[in-house]
Amino acid sequence: MNRESQAGQHVQGSVVALCGGVGGAKLALGLAHALPAERLTIVVNTGDDFSHFGLHVSPDIDTVLYTLSGRVNPETGWGRAGETWRFMEAVGELGGETWFSLGDSDLATHAVRTARLAAGESLTAITSDFAKALGIGPQVLPASDAPIATMVETAEGTLPFQRYFVGQKCAPAVKALRFAGAQAARPSAEVAAALSAPDLGVIILCPSNPYLSIDPILAIAGMRGLIEGAGAPVVAVSPLVGGRAVKGPLAKMMDELGHARSNASILAHYEGLIDLLLIDERDRADAGLDPRLRVAPTMMKSLEERIALARAVLEAAGSLRRKAEA
Amino acid sequence: MNRESQAGQHVQGSVVALCGGVGGAKLALGLAHALPAERLTIVVNTGDDFSHFGLHVSPDIDTVLYTLSGRVNPETGWGRAGETWRFMEAVGELGGETWFSLGDSDLATHAVRTARLAAGESLTAITSDFAKALGIGPQVLPASDAPIATMVETAEGTLPFQRYFVGQKCAPAVKALRFAGAQAARPSAEVAAALSAPDLGVIILCPSNPYLSIDPILAIAGMRGLIEGAGAPVVAVSPLVGGRAVKGPLAKMMDELGHARSNASILAHYEGLIDLLLIDERDRADAGLDPRLRVAPTMMKSLEERIALARAVLEAAGSLRRKAEA
Repeated sequence: MNRESQAGQHVQGSVVALCGGVGGAKLALGLAHALPAERLTIVVNTGDDFSHFGLHVSPDIDTVLYTLSGRVNPETGWGRAGETWRFMEAVGELGGETWFSLGDSDLATHAVRTARLAAGESLTAITSDFAKALGIGPQVLPASDAPIATMVETAEGTLPFQRYFVGQKCAPAVKALRFAGAQAARPSAEVAAALSAPDLGVIILCPSNPYLSIDPILAIAGMRGLIEGAGAPVVAVSPLVGGRAVKGPLAKMMDELGHARSNASILAHYEGLIDLLLIDERDRADAGLDPRLRVAPTMMKSLEERIALARAVLEAAGSLRRKAEA
Repeated sequence: MNRESQAGQHVQGSVVALCGGVGGAKLALGLAHALPAERLTIVVNTGDDFSHFGLHVSPDIDTVLYTLSGRVNPETGWGRAGETWRFMEAVGELGGETWFSLGDSDLATHAVRTARLAAGESLTAITSDFAKALGIGPQVLPASDAPIATMVETAEGTLPFQRYFVGQKCAPAVKALRFAGAQAARPSAEVAAALSAPDLGVIILCPSNPYLSIDPILAIAGMRGLIEGAGAPVVAVSPLVGGRAVKGPLAKMMDELGHARSNASILAHYEGLIDLLLIDERDRADAGLDPRLRVAPTMMKSLEERIALARAVLEAAGSLRRKAEA
């Protein structure tokens, strides 16, 4: 073992991170700072995608693109900084639907995407071009080019994801989740290549909502097989801190789905898939419960904290890889 | 003949005006000021309609709606006053198509229209609701609910209208015009009702480009029959002043199509359809050429001039009706 593989060393090789929107994008940004661009691939959930006003909206891809390019609204974690809302005001004036807000600049992303999809281009190619246009180095990939639609089965009936998430503000109690199209979908060639890279060092499950953001990726036919067959360690970051979700409906959903709001539940959810679950320092007491739990600074309020968590994930993966090689 | 039917009296009954974009909308605004709202129906060209970024754009309907509601950009005559362009800037940044400008507020019109068309509503119903939402009194109707696409046959091949008009800035020499879909289209029930109203006092052809704006309306199967069968006088306003078009490619097109740039050419173009062609005071010398030519103040730089021209049209129609009744 040479000096470069001492404790604290990052994992070697390429890195694939699976993520959803806001929370996942923050870790993706940390990873983008902690790694050379050519070593990082971000695989993004498309189960939230939907058509609005005839435009193809990919909320999680956009959050990742805006976050990695420094364009994201720092107040919300989604949408664009300095956004204007002339479009929405005019929609309201005309009696159109205003339950889903589309900013004037943000609209361009959906419009250009829609035009290119209609011309027969793949979501992968379009996303790749957008990333280049916005000056993003790492590869950003939709999990699949085939349509996947997260459907939320609630006490008030089945709701398309955005109707549940934005339209109803997550109020209806969730009974189950379905990922329409996932069984007919396949990981794109680019995702398959990233997960099959001979030098793959780690697969990271970002601290996104496991049920809403990571599961739609894992539900794609063949995706789990690619991850399990990759031979690289799989490290997840818990989205819970002190039994609460940093953002979004996760804790409420865990109640509704009958899961304790605990890191043990997250570990059980990813059973058979992950080698490590990084949990927050405030949940240090949990760490003794299972050797796969490891403490890390999971709160990401500042860019420094995002980079610090990214480094912690890469170091944790590095230690696993060394263990496997030992 | 009672006192109310003296010279200078407006035509009685309802009024239908056929129009295209900027020039036509100005006269429509004058008519809206000169007539009670319930007497006026504006029938608008839809041959310029096209899909852009997946959105259904109806440029002439929008120009009429923005003009009649006081929202139009006074500098251009189209688009909205005080418009912002954040969307277009972001489209450019993403490498999208920027040849056709869509303002941030204007986008709402296309987006809401697209969503409602996709939900199975008619362009007529949507336009009617938009007019109400914008506080417009007169009835604004698309000439047909069926798609009509003006195709410009040029020396450089056949171009869809907006590619010719905006994309190529009318540069290619025009050889002919086709109105795809017009033979399969029919006037809407609302247009047919307006043209069949027992009290119809006049049908006005606004000073829009005859080839690009009025002909696509007249090309709709059954439209000419409705106009000819209406029994009301048909009065056109010449779009030429001193052999020049007030705006747009008309004069250049007349050259290319082999027509002299003259009111005689406009009269010949509308032969068999119109009873009067109002020509500008600067073309007073033409008036002796044909009894159907009559001088009017056709320049419409101010609102007052728009109303004055509207009154002149209504008075001219009134004199015709009285003649017919005499």
